[in-house]
Amino acid sequence: MVNKDLIPKYWYNIIPDLPKPLPPPRDPPDAEFSRIELLKKILPREVLRQQFTIERFIKIPEEVRDRYAIIGRPTPLMRAKRLEEYLDTPAKIYFKFEGATPTGSHKINTAIPQAYFAAEEGISHVVTETGAGQWGTAVALAASMYDLSSTIFMVRVSYEQKPMRKTIMELYGGKVYASPTDLTEFGRKILKENPNHPGSLGIAMSEAIEFALNHNFRYLVGSVLDVVLLHQSIIGMEAIAQLDELGEEPDILIGCVGGGSNFGGFTYPFIGAKKGKKYIAVGAAEIPKFSTGKYEYDYPDTAGLLPLVKMITLGKDYVPPPIYAGGLRYHGVAPTLSLLIKEKIVEWREYKEEEIYEAAKIFMKTQGIVPAPESAHAIKAVIDEALKAKTEKERRVIVFNLSGHGLLDLGNYESIRRRVEK
Amino acid sequence: MVNKDLIPKYWYNIIPDLPKPLPPPRDPPDAEFSRIELLKKILPREVLRQQFTIERFIKIPEEVRDRYAIIGRPTPLMRAKRLEEYLDTPAKIYFKFEGATPTGSHKINTAIPQAYFAAEEGISHVVTETGAGQWGTAVALAASMYDLSSTIFMVRVSYEQKPMRKTIMELYGGKVYASPTDLTEFGRKILKENPNHPGSLGIAMSEAIEFALNHNFRYLVGSVLDVVLLHQSIIGMEAIAQLDELGEEPDILIGCVGGGSNFGGFTYPFIGAKKGKKYIAVGAAEIPKFSTGKYEYDYPDTAGLLPLVKMITLGKDYVPPPIYAGGLRYHGVAPTLSLLIKEKIVEWREYKEEEIYEAAKIFMKTQGIVPAPESAHAIKAVIDEALKAKTEKERRVIVFNLSGHGLLDLGNYESIRRRVEK
Repeated sequence: MVNKDLIPKYWYNIIPDLPKPLPPPRDPPDAEFSRIELLKKILPREVLRQQFTIERFIKIPEEVRDRYAIIGRPTPLMRAKRLEEYLDTPAKIYFKFEGATPTGSHKINTAIPQAYFAAEEGISHVVTETGAGQWGTAVALAASMYDLSSTIFMVRVSYEQKPMRKTIMELYGGKVYASPTDLTEFGRKILKENPNHPGSLGIAMSEAIEFALNHNFRYLVGSVLDVVLLHQSIIGMEAIAQLDELGEEPDILIGCVGGGSNFGGFTYPFIGAKKGKKYIAVGAAEIPKFSTGKYEYDYPDTAGLLPLVKMITLGKDYVPPPIYAGGLRYHGVAPTLSLLIKEKIVEWREYKEEEIYEAAKIFMKTQGIVPAPESAHAIKAVIDEALKAKTEKERRVIVFNLSGHGLLDLGNYESIRRRVEK
Repeated sequence: MVNKDLIPKYWYNIIPDLPKPLPPPRDPPDAEFSRIELLKKILPREVLRQQFTIERFIKIPEEVRDRYAIIGRPTPLMRAKRLEEYLDTPAKIYFKFEGATPTGSHKINTAIPQAYFAAEEGISHVVTETGAGQWGTAVALAASMYDLSSTIFMVRVSYEQKPMRKTIMELYGGKVYASPTDLTEFGRKILKENPNHPGSLGIAMSEAIEFALNHNFRYLVGSVLDVVLLHQSIIGMEAIAQLDELGEEPDILIGCVGGGSNFGGFTYPFIGAKKGKKYIAVGAAEIPKFSTGKYEYDYPDTAGLLPLVKMITLGKDYVPPPIYAGGLRYHGVAPTLSLLIKEKIVEWREYKEEEIYEAAKIFMKTQGIVPAPESAHAIKAVIDEALKAKTEKERRVIVFNLSGHGLLDLGNYESIRRRVEK
């Protein structure tokens, strides 16, 4: 039984517990306009406040906890017993299953509070952009949960290739447009140059922000920003309570990294509570930001509309190659996570997609769940750590975040199968 | 935390508790071969035994309970609080969410024990047919959980229209063929007459049975037979325990009916325990078997290879129109359920798909979950009963089975949207 009493009452903010002060966001020196001022205009007030807070624990509003209960929080913490048996490892493997939420991933955890804070200040309409559609789906659902309208600018090429994503957003009541659109000045400019422009995440985001500004709507942000990681900490807060109930002490915590929000949301509460000995962030070898990225000020968004943040980055203009885990195609690493990696508190791994696909297949056959391709990166690291525990004959407790299921990613699975197996 | 201790230890068999003896399955009088003898050759021995047992409670093997834990049983019993608020009803609405299993529906509940019983007697390979793919997916996963091979004959037209279903079955390790195939005599005969034959469930089933017979494999059966309803009783057994824990006494129990396995699995334990005042079976108005079907001996399968059973039926040769809930396109009603309807212990409803679609949308916007189109039939009846409770100012407890999610049915949603909204 889903029980609201089991839902944590606080989000955890790692900023006061970082080993060094977090370099603050800043405006580019020669900017035409202030990104920080822009942020103030487009984000719900409370989201903005939380983005810059140094409080350690932030109370989750009851109206948000109610919605967390509706989407099935706390999500299950499951033992991967058949995976352990398959690997013949002395390690115990647990996973937190964020795919148990209706939209199939962790994204909804921050969409709900952001929509709530918009509704709270009397805003009737929220706006965002989406690439593959996971974030847009979360926003459409969260908006409907507070009776808000939502508009989603979806990258045209995804809009055409992933019609089911559009369908689900519309079923939730969202208005979905293939970006570039003629609804914004920016979109009209692009279309004038190329009426068949395939769109990009940067363009869609620029349109979403312009649209929000023009109509006094609010813009919701899906990853990377500190406030998003804060909301995602619901994952780790729950996992700590669930492991406590089992009497388990975790040794190794693992998650995949696109922008860093599911990883931070899952591991930070453990880091803050000094639980665990090793934290492993897993990325895609094809987008080698951990191994080759620089730690410097860069735009978190490809449009360059958000304030500069100090992070590990391949540069905002880096174009990630197409890989089957679309959600990992991001140039940077959330600022707090970048700092924790630089300070060697968090380790990283990078794996190639062929390895990831094999790991995903092992997980499917042993545990039955089709993992999101992104989450399968965490599984690959889990398998490696479990085999290491076997070699070293150590009964370690490994816990990972299965950030989403892959039922809406079967097309991606089909294409990697064709590449790898034929 | 998924906890094996919470998984029931017994399945419930309604046969000894029926108000009248169940008319036994029988062979057609002038048959070339005995269907009952055929059943003995193709079903795992224990499945056959359970098909004909009159014991009230059947112990669930520990190896099956282990796998039930792996797939996330007990599935959650959730309160539909926002739906209640939306309807402004004094009724309390709960639902059992079978979509929480990895394959997204209740089908896996019987695939697991059937695969287990095959493995137990040393069989290495199981075979079945599938239409839209839901059952085939469950069989492919269940087989992989006991290290069995699986072969699935998929109706050609679905194979071509639903490539993602093929992908998921293959990812689980299943071999999937577009039926008619050249792997069986029956298939070759059909292909000789028409090399582009679109296939049918009857043809696919005939091929699966022939294939199983020829290779001494075992055939797994997805619905209608008593043994399938027996295994599905895990749903109701769990729901009773979950409601008990909440201190709730159910008044009305509701489920949709394709063949009857999710409905029977959910409601029979309540009927047996004399819990609940009203049981409502919901079908599609486009396939009017409750309102116009006859109660007579008929084949449960369109191929006519299984023994005749007495049931409410539109006739095995009835061709259901295409509706968006593909899983309800079945000509009959499981024998035990037919008898309970005839005896007026179970009520029925039939709704049109436009009404169903509206109910599904309400559920999505209030509870966030995209329901399987089949399960949305239950939701429509729930809404009607909740509004009736409002009119009658009665605080009733309504519990329904949400037999699956609709994330793999978004294409069906898109087509009904186009029909209804444009």
